[in-house]
Amino acid sequence: MSDTTRAWHLVSRPSGMPTMNNFELKETALPALEDGWVRVDNEWLSVDPYMRGRMNDTRSYVPPFQLGEPLQGGAVGRVAESRSPDLDVGDTVVHMLGWRETSAGPAQNFTRVPSLPFAVETHQWLGNLGLTGATAYFGLLRVAEAKAGETVFVSAAAGAVGSAVVQIARARGMTVIGSAGGAEKCAWVSELGADAAIDYKAGPIDRQLAETLKRLGRNGIDVYFDNVGGDHLDAAFAAAGQNARFAICGMIEDYNKGSTHAFRYIMRIIAARIAIKGFLYFDYLAELPDFYRDMAGWISGGQVTSRETVREGLESMPEAFLDLFRGANVGKMLVRL
Amino acid sequence: MSDTTRAWHLVSRPSGMPTMNNFELKETALPALEDGWVRVDNEWLSVDPYMRGRMNDTRSYVPPFQLGEPLQGGAVGRVAESRSPDLDVGDTVVHMLGWRETSAGPAQNFTRVPSLPFAVETHQWLGNLGLTGATAYFGLLRVAEAKAGETVFVSAAAGAVGSAVVQIARARGMTVIGSAGGAEKCAWVSELGADAAIDYKAGPIDRQLAETLKRLGRNGIDVYFDNVGGDHLDAAFAAAGQNARFAICGMIEDYNKGSTHAFRYIMRIIAARIAIKGFLYFDYLAELPDFYRDMAGWISGGQVTSRETVREGLESMPEAFLDLFRGANVGKMLVRL
Repeated sequence: MSDTTRAWHLVSRPSGMPTMNNFELKETALPALEDGWVRVDNEWLSVDPYMRGRMNDTRSYVPPFQLGEPLQGGAVGRVAESRSPDLDVGDTVVHMLGWRETSAGPAQNFTRVPSLPFAVETHQWLGNLGLTGATAYFGLLRVAEAKAGETVFVSAAAGAVGSAVVQIARARGMTVIGSAGGAEKCAWVSELGADAAIDYKAGPIDRQLAETLKRLGRNGIDVYFDNVGGDHLDAAFAAAGQNARFAICGMIEDYNKGSTHAFRYIMRIIAARIAIKGFLYFDYLAELPDFYRDMAGWISGGQVTSRETVREGLESMPEAFLDLFRGANVGKMLVRL
Repeated sequence: MSDTTRAWHLVSRPSGMPTMNNFELKETALPALEDGWVRVDNEWLSVDPYMRGRMNDTRSYVPPFQLGEPLQGGAVGRVAESRSPDLDVGDTVVHMLGWRETSAGPAQNFTRVPSLPFAVETHQWLGNLGLTGATAYFGLLRVAEAKAGETVFVSAAAGAVGSAVVQIARARGMTVIGSAGGAEKCAWVSELGADAAIDYKAGPIDRQLAETLKRLGRNGIDVYFDNVGGDHLDAAFAAAGQNARFAICGMIEDYNKGSTHAFRYIMRIIAARIAIKGFLYFDYLAELPDFYRDMAGWISGGQVTSRETVREGLESMPEAFLDLFRGANVGKMLVRL
């Protein structure tokens, strides 16, 4: 046991795209373990686009990161010391005190992973069996209420959430169009089972989406799962069928620059009676048992698979985060400790 | 009976703001009255912003107006000749064959107005008791599901639909903030019962809305009724409370120029879990009895009143339409024949 840990701190707020200068790796004291607390040695850290929002000093989903404090984020690790009856040494737990090697706090901040009838690689608890997979599941099936036979468009389809959306939609009998940047990513989106993959770097997304729908013999999209915002959202406005539903999960295109997109097709909200809803995974915590049941079935049946982009060591964390905005990841971006 | 009527025709499609050159008043033959048809002498013509959309040759709510054909729109008149058992000579009917003096067609295209337990001025069937009032009613109460105690923001609050929204919201016990252009219109919005009226010409709407909420002791808006789009919609994104609902009725700011607005606050869709829904009055025809019951009660009780901007004579119709986009109307814009 050490009395300190190494943790990434936010030392200045980024304006626009973050740089390495906003981050500093510091040795920091671990609080003494109080009654009911545990200490967890982290094995994997989650690297997610939404973290960018918490780096601003504005109201967002969750409170902003504090300057001079360790950053936070999803992590999975093993209980190394426990002063709680609820968790035992050796338990695998997921939690939100990432960006550091060792985390400590009240046991209720750490969730023991459920036992499943098949072997689960530890990092999966941050991916398809974690916040990523649950975000895809709740956004597609609860927020957008996507149904078998419908046509789903999902942006960033080679990303962590997007690739889960593609596979869940296919498992539930939907037609899926995914967009991704570049031929390699698009090939993977097709491998995942998408009926069509659009390379948004190859031409205007609105025109490509319209052509794809025509080729598939579809009049419009029923559901749009938005990870991107900007021109993808505008293309979805243009392509929306009657009573289309949009689940707004993220707008990575706008995280660093703010939205500067002029929506040419936004007025179709009225014509097509589009319903748009923003959501967060946290809104559906009560339905996690449904998610685990369905997702475990799909994973064990091979219907939902994953790829990861893995960086090694705590030192690589900020660079891995910056790479999200350069489109450097295929599937889930992770740091292995 | 005449065999011809005078009707405004669309002779060219406007690009951007329409001009008088797009319209031509022509003598046109009335079709011979077939079995089941009626002929109606129009008394009032409705002048509405949504008509702009039908002047484009693109898919919109309803099919585009055809070049060289008479324009269409809401109208109320009296049956002058009937070859239908469903309508009698002298019946007051509302219909969508406006922009002309006399209309003829199958009786099912003309709706006899319901009888109410108080005197109704004929033009009210185009206003608070017509498409205008029903749009306000369904948008506020059905689409946005606004409830007593909630805070409602409505743009173009001195317009036909907006002024109805203000009064319905007050009748149902909501706090109402309305925006309008200029001190005179704002004074009327306050007279209608709005808790606050914002003059959008007096400063940035987002800042004014934030200040107004603070003054009223409210943290955010629960409902936004959008008639405007653009910077008003963006201000509503900024001011939205958790689980706010936006009913998108119109985007008059964008009808002529297309949306060139960069939404600075659109990402709050996620943070505040905003639900946005486009709608048209036609979606709720089955619930018209609810509307007539409630609206008749409010009108007879003095809770919902109206003002009209009236232009005289068929000749004035296109200019009245163009004036909508100059903000020249207070309340409903009408042409009296």
